[in-house]
Amino acid sequence: MNTLGNKLRVTIFGQSHAPAIGCVVEGLPAGFAPDMEQVAAFMARRAPGQNAWSTSRKESDRPEILSGLVDGKTCGAPVAMAIRNSDQHSRDYSGLKRTPRPSHADYTALVKFGSSYDIRGGGQFSGRLTAPLCFAGALALQVLAGRGISVGAHIAQIGQVWDKATDFAHVDQEALAAVGRNSFPVFDGDAGDAMRQAIEAARLDGDSVGGVIRCFALGLPAGIGEPMFGGVENRLAAALFGIPAVRGVSFGDGFAAAAMRGSAHNDPFVMDGERVSTRTNHAGGVLGGITTGMPLVVNIAVKPTASIAMPQDTVDLETKEPASLTIHGRHDPCIVPRAVPVAEAVTALTLLDMLMED
Amino acid sequence: MNTLGNKLRVTIFGQSHAPAIGCVVEGLPAGFAPDMEQVAAFMARRAPGQNAWSTSRKESDRPEILSGLVDGKTCGAPVAMAIRNSDQHSRDYSGLKRTPRPSHADYTALVKFGSSYDIRGGGQFSGRLTAPLCFAGALALQVLAGRGISVGAHIAQIGQVWDKATDFAHVDQEALAAVGRNSFPVFDGDAGDAMRQAIEAARLDGDSVGGVIRCFALGLPAGIGEPMFGGVENRLAAALFGIPAVRGVSFGDGFAAAAMRGSAHNDPFVMDGERVSTRTNHAGGVLGGITTGMPLVVNIAVKPTASIAMPQDTVDLETKEPASLTIHGRHDPCIVPRAVPVAEAVTALTLLDMLMED
Amino acid sequence: MNTLGNKLRVTIFGQSHAPAIGCVVEGLPAGFAPDMEQVAAFMARRAPGQNAWSTSRKESDRPEILSGLVDGKTCGAPVAMAIRNSDQHSRDYSGLKRTPRPSHADYTALVKFGSSYDIRGGGQFSGRLTAPLCFAGALALQVLAGRGISVGAHIAQIGQVWDKATDFAHVDQEALAAVGRNSFPVFDGDAGDAMRQAIEAARLDGDSVGGVIRCFALGLPAGIGEPMFGGVENRLAAALFGIPAVRGVSFGDGFAAAAMRGSAHNDPFVMDGERVSTRTNHAGGVLGGITTGMPLVVNIAVKPTASIAMPQDTVDLETKEPASLTIHGRHDPCIVPRAVPVAEAVTALTLLDMLMED
Amino acid sequence: MNTLGNKLRVTIFGQSHAPAIGCVVEGLPAGFAPDMEQVAAFMARRAPGQNAWSTSRKESDRPEILSGLVDGKTCGAPVAMAIRNSDQHSRDYSGLKRTPRPSHADYTALVKFGSSYDIRGGGQFSGRLTAPLCFAGALALQVLAGRGISVGAHIAQIGQVWDKATDFAHVDQEALAAVGRNSFPVFDGDAGDAMRQAIEAARLDGDSVGGVIRCFALGLPAGIGEPMFGGVENRLAAALFGIPAVRGVSFGDGFAAAAMRGSAHNDPFVMDGERVSTRTNHAGGVLGGITTGMPLVVNIAVKPTASIAMPQDTVDLETKEPASLTIHGRHDPCIVPRAVPVAEAVTALTLLDMLMED
Repeated sequence: MNTLGNKLRVTIFGQSHAPAIGCVVEGLPAGFAPDMEQVAAFMARRAPGQNAWSTSRKESDRPEILSGLVDGKTCGAPVAMAIRNSDQHSRDYSGLKRTPRPSHADYTALVKFGSSYDIRGGGQFSGRLTAPLCFAGALALQVLAGRGISVGAHIAQIGQVWDKATDFAHVDQEALAAVGRNSFPVFDGDAGDAMRQAIEAARLDGDSVGGVIRCFALGLPAGIGEPMFGGVENRLAAALFGIPAVRGVSFGDGFAAAAMRGSAHNDPFVMDGERVSTRTNHAGGVLGGITTGMPLVVNIAVKPTASIAMPQDTVDLETKEPASLTIHGRHDPCIVPRAVPVAEAVTALTLLDMLMED
Repeated sequence: MNTLGNKLRVTIFGQSHAPAIGCVVEGLPAGFAPDMEQVAAFMARRAPGQNAWSTSRKESDRPEILSGLVDGKTCGAPVAMAIRNSDQHSRDYSGLKRTPRPSHADYTALVKFGSSYDIRGGGQFSGRLTAPLCFAGALALQVLAGRGISVGAHIAQIGQVWDKATDFAHVDQEALAAVGRNSFPVFDGDAGDAMRQAIEAARLDGDSVGGVIRCFALGLPAGIGEPMFGGVENRLAAALFGIPAVRGVSFGDGFAAAAMRGSAHNDPFVMDGERVSTRTNHAGGVLGGITTGMPLVVNIAVKPTASIAMPQDTVDLETKEPASLTIHGRHDPCIVPRAVPVAEAVTALTLLDMLMED
Repeated sequence: MNTLGNKLRVTIFGQSHAPAIGCVVEGLPAGFAPDMEQVAAFMARRAPGQNAWSTSRKESDRPEILSGLVDGKTCGAPVAMAIRNSDQHSRDYSGLKRTPRPSHADYTALVKFGSSYDIRGGGQFSGRLTAPLCFAGALALQVLAGRGISVGAHIAQIGQVWDKATDFAHVDQEALAAVGRNSFPVFDGDAGDAMRQAIEAARLDGDSVGGVIRCFALGLPAGIGEPMFGGVENRLAAALFGIPAVRGVSFGDGFAAAAMRGSAHNDPFVMDGERVSTRTNHAGGVLGGITTGMPLVVNIAVKPTASIAMPQDTVDLETKEPASLTIHGRHDPCIVPRAVPVAEAVTALTLLDMLMED
Repeated sequence: MNTLGNKLRVTIFGQSHAPAIGCVVEGLPAGFAPDMEQVAAFMARRAPGQNAWSTSRKESDRPEILSGLVDGKTCGAPVAMAIRNSDQHSRDYSGLKRTPRPSHADYTALVKFGSSYDIRGGGQFSGRLTAPLCFAGALALQVLAGRGISVGAHIAQIGQVWDKATDFAHVDQEALAAVGRNSFPVFDGDAGDAMRQAIEAARLDGDSVGGVIRCFALGLPAGIGEPMFGGVENRLAAALFGIPAVRGVSFGDGFAAAAMRGSAHNDPFVMDGERVSTRTNHAGGVLGGITTGMPLVVNIAVKPTASIAMPQDTVDLETKEPASLTIHGRHDPCIVPRAVPVAEAVTALTLLDMLMED
């Protein structure tokens, strides 16, 4: 349901216009002193209103710690956190219960929860619910860093524009960290410019555009993951599809592997000093569900934002007649840039959970 | 681990060369009388040795029912089943513990389980373990059929060849059923011929080739699935990555959505008689993790078979020196055709589990 | 860990002296309008400072709803709730990390969590954490009542005093409800007086005393529960041992059954109008883990409060020398009366979860 | 359902008259070489037909290993095992579907599973299903022994006869091991004689009698277990109630604690050389759900066998009329002696699971 993980477990709560959103994080090691400045900086990467490509809505995403930290250190009790929802628009959302927005969860939520469903601002399906995920993920990233593991993502694609290719067998940790400090996280600045233009063009058209996020984990030991249904891919995919708008998850070469031959896709084993390595890393760091010790590479397809300014066809659920809908308010013409830290957060939480289970 | 599902739960056991492989299926409704001919026919679709594109190894995949059925009906107790492994080659596999096969689980399994790992025939990572999955899936498919839900898949891509496109909003149930009776399950016979040629070409080169399976579920009610981490995508992806060689899972337009604009990707709501429907189905039948009532569409990328006849580079784990490896024995040059029923089985098991939880 | 339930899931957070304690309740049916007066009244039964036999500490147990309710109704999103910890004593608790209190969790928590463990006021092991459990349980009790199921408990024993025996086959629902309105919940007022005297005598001696709570659930349908490890007893016991100070859980005749013969313990089936019933109910309403439709009877042994005023022997964990410890502050000389609603809450949550899974 | 454990997971299958019963054990450490003679000896303690106090039915409980062992060592794959049911009586059980046996699961199983329920020999509720539990437990006991942890139980009570009391703070490991080699496991031979007489007296009366099993675990490290719902008591109770006929589970002084004062029940901390210990062990080795490092003491109440030779009242479920039932066949007049190894098995499995999760 709203819970991610086994030994490290995050439970998310809240709706877009509830008094608060937040989370409970169980299983963090006791005695860990998170750097709260870093947590805030990480959460800011997801926050809206900072750039041309994100909405100008202001969220006050200051997390209030409710429990689990004493003198800045985890004490073994669950870390609970709440963020007040201060920026609640009072406008009437009830119309959306009659004319559901195409490709939103409005309709399916109404079928599932009935008329009591909180449709205001997207309710519990709002992208705003990823703020507590980022909080929890920021903690996990710090624990992982303490174990020599770094997780970072870049925008691999926006619309028809691709960032430059990465050699999956030789991912540069410093370059990856630099990308994370970039407000628009790409390796190739020119590609980034073209991506921003594609987003702006969509926005001017009252439209939106999708993209792909590629997330890496470096420094993972070999041997993490279980066979069959407990593999790294199973666990990461189950988690990453929890991010709104994700339509696909793949590892290494992903869907491109379908068009390849084995002789091109197989990764020959080689020695890297004393360490067993692979010459290439088409597998994306995982074989049989278990990490190889090579960089973990996961690709996440994000659909174009469903909320677009153009009028759209829908139905009136009361009259069962066709209706036209125009969505008001500001919406990101592309959710991908703000979803990058969310992907990192979910990846970090899942990997730390698996490491703790091992 | 080796267990799939919550209320309907399948536990798989066995290794390629163990005395047996099998499964325990918990949670099937009591009083259900499975058609065992249909089960056998379904399992035969996965079995090797039947076609030019699959290995000539013979498996005797006769499932022996150990418990759970009385007079041909489920009695409420777990259905346990075992298949004897009669075709065990006595040849020496120990060499593979020194020179792991590229892109196989040999190496990661050795890291995880140590030298006791059963490497014979791929051990617990063998594709043979999908036989009990198909047994369990065949039962689930019959229960689903009794509820008006059909699950069927086709080969959407082999190498550079694509089957013809499907209108996701109007999937023809009869055509889908016909594809399932096809020994090479494609909608377009010409595409099928070209795919078989691509496989044969790879085989003649001592190579292999990958592909994409697309699986549909028709007749699902709207409202199945939970928000966030309990969605249809999360659950199906977690399950489908349990099939060996799967590298990506996506829904509806999948990764292609990344290149699209919202105006093209959004599915306008329309009335279909008394029923709320969508004009298109780029979403693949699921919004916010919850079914829309439209056909569910899931795409599964399968890598080229790792076992190829060409000599490959690897390392000798004892001497830590480079080594060359030639894999003997017969291996499918393309695993995709035999993985089609496995994808159907896993999809059916997961959907029935979610329906039972609802 | 801190989570109870599968489909109805409660996650508890907080420590005695954290900014807040609270819970997240997932899986409540959408559209349910809880009576918040009743919730408050139920929580008040657990609150301290109301009677001679409970401490005079004041807790402001006003739950603040953070999410999940819109216009007083559940909307399908998790119901999150926080209670501020206003009554935090500033006194120094660090001494307890050197000289752990006998029969408290201080020592085991220090072993588990190390020196970062929040020992103030019992930390996460404080009985105060049962306040959010009661909040969640109050919601479950209302949902159950709407389905014709009532849950109620009485004090069956304090020290050497027993409440009058109940005919488990004919539990009077009105009498049970009346007991719940009683500030000291017993069927027999004289027994209640004697129990209070036993508690007062212990208090005057600087000592404490234990007891037994017996909880009933009336109106449960037959057929709830799963064989083997998913039975009503398994699930209820797993939950009830989460209440601090519980040392034993039994069903029906419980440990007394050990001394009985089958002819006395067996419950003959009889017709009760059109309904299959049993003449006696030694089984306590459950056979083979599955409800019989008779009253469910669960007995819960509660140890005497570990915090007593007398000086006690312990060790100094730093010097490894014997030490004497005198516990200051006010503590209930008997936790049993306040634990009665907690037992009802946990029973209600577990039974509703099982009903929802069915 | 039929599955016990998280990281070490046992799935039980079978019915009394199915082709087989068995289990799948996931998560055993790879490279472990179980002593199969010891496993057989352990299973023999549970087997019927060996003594005056157990039925003369013969079971051929030879476990056949289906997977997971290679050259006598675990390989990391699940260990699957089946036991053929050779001794199936062909007599007609269908009468029991009309006139359910008092205090058996017949009736509740019929409500739950309907007329397809396999009632022959008790179906999936048969005590025979504890044979695979003992198999799995025997493996766990050996792994625990390798870590210096021993688990052993004795018969603490049969009817009105008690074995001699044990000082919970000073349980003698050798004496405990000796008890396990005893065909009637008691510390006090005279008490054992009296118990056997009580059983024989019940048998001669066509009746049965109950008892209490007390199980110890020695050598457990301090710090195992999680707060609240993940404690040792929660986990053990949830598991132990899976043994047929168990009606109560308690720890240390258990229900007797209810009658005690804190000054008598509290266990003062003392140094035992360099190790923190407690002078007494009323707590039974666990505080706040977490092990103290003292002997773990769990008491298990077992009801008198429901199958007695005397005629009993029941109802005819078809006619809804009263009926008299006489149960034929041989049944243990007291199940307690044979349940002792089952209690050890379940305790060992649960503790090893918790150790592996830690």
